[in-house]
Amino acid sequence: MRSVGIVGIGHTKFGKSRVSYTDMACEAALQALKDAGVTPLPGHGIDQVLLATMGASMINHQSGAASAIVDTLNLRPAMAETVENGPASGASAIKLGYSMIASGLADTVLVIGAEMMRKVSGWEGTDFVATMLHPEAEYPYGMTLPALAGMFTRLIMGKYGLTSKDLALLSVKNHSNAMHNPCAHIRMVPDLEAITADEDIETVNPLVADPLRLYDVCPVSDGAAAVLLCAMDVADRFEKKAIRVAGIGQATDTHAVAEREVPTDLLAVRMAAQRAYEMSGLLPTDIDVAELHDAFLILEIVESEEVGFFKRGEGHLALREGKTQIGGEIPINTSGGLKAKGHPLGATGVSQTVEIVRQLRGEAEGRQVEGARNGLVVNFGGFGNNVVALILSKDA
Amino acid sequence: MRSVGIVGIGHTKFGKSRVSYTDMACEAALQALKDAGVTPLPGHGIDQVLLATMGASMINHQSGAASAIVDTLNLRPAMAETVENGPASGASAIKLGYSMIASGLADTVLVIGAEMMRKVSGWEGTDFVATMLHPEAEYPYGMTLPALAGMFTRLIMGKYGLTSKDLALLSVKNHSNAMHNPCAHIRMVPDLEAITADEDIETVNPLVADPLRLYDVCPVSDGAAAVLLCAMDVADRFEKKAIRVAGIGQATDTHAVAEREVPTDLLAVRMAAQRAYEMSGLLPTDIDVAELHDAFLILEIVESEEVGFFKRGEGHLALREGKTQIGGEIPINTSGGLKAKGHPLGATGVSQTVEIVRQLRGEAEGRQVEGARNGLVVNFGGFGNNVVALILSKDA
Repeated sequence: MRSVGIVGIGHTKFGKSRVSYTDMACEAALQALKDAGVTPLPGHGIDQVLLATMGASMINHQSGAASAIVDTLNLRPAMAETVENGPASGASAIKLGYSMIASGLADTVLVIGAEMMRKVSGWEGTDFVATMLHPEAEYPYGMTLPALAGMFTRLIMGKYGLTSKDLALLSVKNHSNAMHNPCAHIRMVPDLEAITADEDIETVNPLVADPLRLYDVCPVSDGAAAVLLCAMDVADRFEKKAIRVAGIGQATDTHAVAEREVPTDLLAVRMAAQRAYEMSGLLPTDIDVAELHDAFLILEIVESEEVGFFKRGEGHLALREGKTQIGGEIPINTSGGLKAKGHPLGATGVSQTVEIVRQLRGEAEGRQVEGARNGLVVNFGGFGNNVVALILSKDA
Repeated sequence: MRSVGIVGIGHTKFGKSRVSYTDMACEAALQALKDAGVTPLPGHGIDQVLLATMGASMINHQSGAASAIVDTLNLRPAMAETVENGPASGASAIKLGYSMIASGLADTVLVIGAEMMRKVSGWEGTDFVATMLHPEAEYPYGMTLPALAGMFTRLIMGKYGLTSKDLALLSVKNHSNAMHNPCAHIRMVPDLEAITADEDIETVNPLVADPLRLYDVCPVSDGAAAVLLCAMDVADRFEKKAIRVAGIGQATDTHAVAEREVPTDLLAVRMAAQRAYEMSGLLPTDIDVAELHDAFLILEIVESEEVGFFKRGEGHLALREGKTQIGGEIPINTSGGLKAKGHPLGATGVSQTVEIVRQLRGEAEGRQVEGARNGLVVNFGGFGNNVVALILSKDA
């Protein structure tokens, strides 16, 4: 199998986009091409474009959006497809891009994740996200993602002693990291005392889905991110030194959360990470920096256990000890995470990958993990029913 | 690169489905698994599921539909993604499935194409299809696919002398083929005299988009099709002898049709076919049977020229001479084509592939092309802005 690396990255400012869906996606793509030193003129050498999105058709009323992007970028006759795997669409597209190169069908693949979801708000937005739930066993009963996350958090609290204060502490950590990420949607750090005080709590930090409050859940963001993948054997065509995609793992779990044997486990995260470790030949202790999927903060805690950083039920203890902050044992979500950087669904896995590339290149100004050589991405689809893990490595 | 083959096929009756979207997709998938001799129990050996659809989220309000299908089929923890490339989603998913196997990331990939589009009718249905057009240059001006096809047909008529009667003749050919395909949506043969007579024409064969009439355009269909891909080096695990995927080609063209230098050319069809021929080492004259994308009948004519079967402007002459009917020089759309078999968008490319597999296996009862060894599929996205060509071969 041919080795595959990343030679270009791009990332829009997450938040509220003022341009069209296509233009937003192209902005990230052009940054990635520029970063790699590619000019989109005839002979550009881009063989394939993969667009990751969950809502381009449902929200933005566009199908074949990948073809529109190829044309707008002047990359014709490059191949193009759209890839969807709920909020894990981004890492899924990177996986399929990897396979196109490793198989020899392409030498270069531009992967773009883009979601413009602030067009829908309130209940309509929650409903859009809920379309990823089980179409017979969950969605028709009014189940939503925040509701599932609330119940999941309650179970973890009861089982392992995690408290609301732990979540607030995690919120402060991720928001603090986002202060150093110019692309982050939310750049303010909540006051730990204020968001956990009894007084005025419904004003300062209102309930979203008990026990989850505003500062425990990600915002609704527009945004796009892009990475240029290439075969390591053609990497010298590009300006930047390639960061190698060393491991890929993916697993599905029951689509309905209620059908899981142990409802507090995230089995697909464990299996996906395990497969990525096996492919890369690395161990959890080899990972220097990780982007974990914290659409709800509780997920960062449980994922940090499932990927083998901490023992089961001890993720929140590691957080309290500062092990997951920058400078700690294993910094998690240096980008600010989905919580503070924002979570434009289809863009997220690509955005997480961009952050790891920045860290391994030593370009994560203000939030750099010194000497980082190996990084992990966990991109979480549904409520853990389809998870993709990626391991990136900086070669000597 | 590892060789890849097809060892299982499945196909629902196209038309109006009475079951849920997931169940319809699973029906085709279970047929393909059964055909290959696979039981979906632990140890089933299916590594990846790819779902091709354009409307699962827009029409059926489901995202992550591939994950729901994996779970319903009891194929957990298989990897799963949804692939979208407008009406070429099916062949795109086969291409990406091929790459997963050729790269070594998977040994087996179940590709399912499924579209349930009869939920929307009339203008709403036309609008759904029109979302594949250029989001700035076509869609906002009220452009639709039938309108583009009408104008395209007019140009071809003026340039090469094709007539409405030629289209009617082609309609009769494809409808006649569909009479032998139990999965076809429409199983009746229109009367050539009646659909071309001046008398009562608006009742018998009403205008859709001048000069196209009812019998010149495909119906709106629900349906699903599935193929099980595997590495040729593990093909002996399965009951059926593998049909090899010998060539894959894909190309994009300008997203807006008005921007094409020669508006009567289908450049992406030509380039995609050329690449597929190169990869397979075959020539147009080596192809024994072809499924071409006749969502509008005119496309079959022009594609038959672009893929090299006939000279430019002579496709309709070949039709008149019977060269494209069963028993002719190069039988096209033995399944009935999109025109008579139906065109559930995301299912189409997979359905076309199923027909070629049947032909190469010698299982196309009543419509068998004797001695067929190599078959071509052309799956057409947008109005020719993203085209995928596949060549399948029966090894000695």
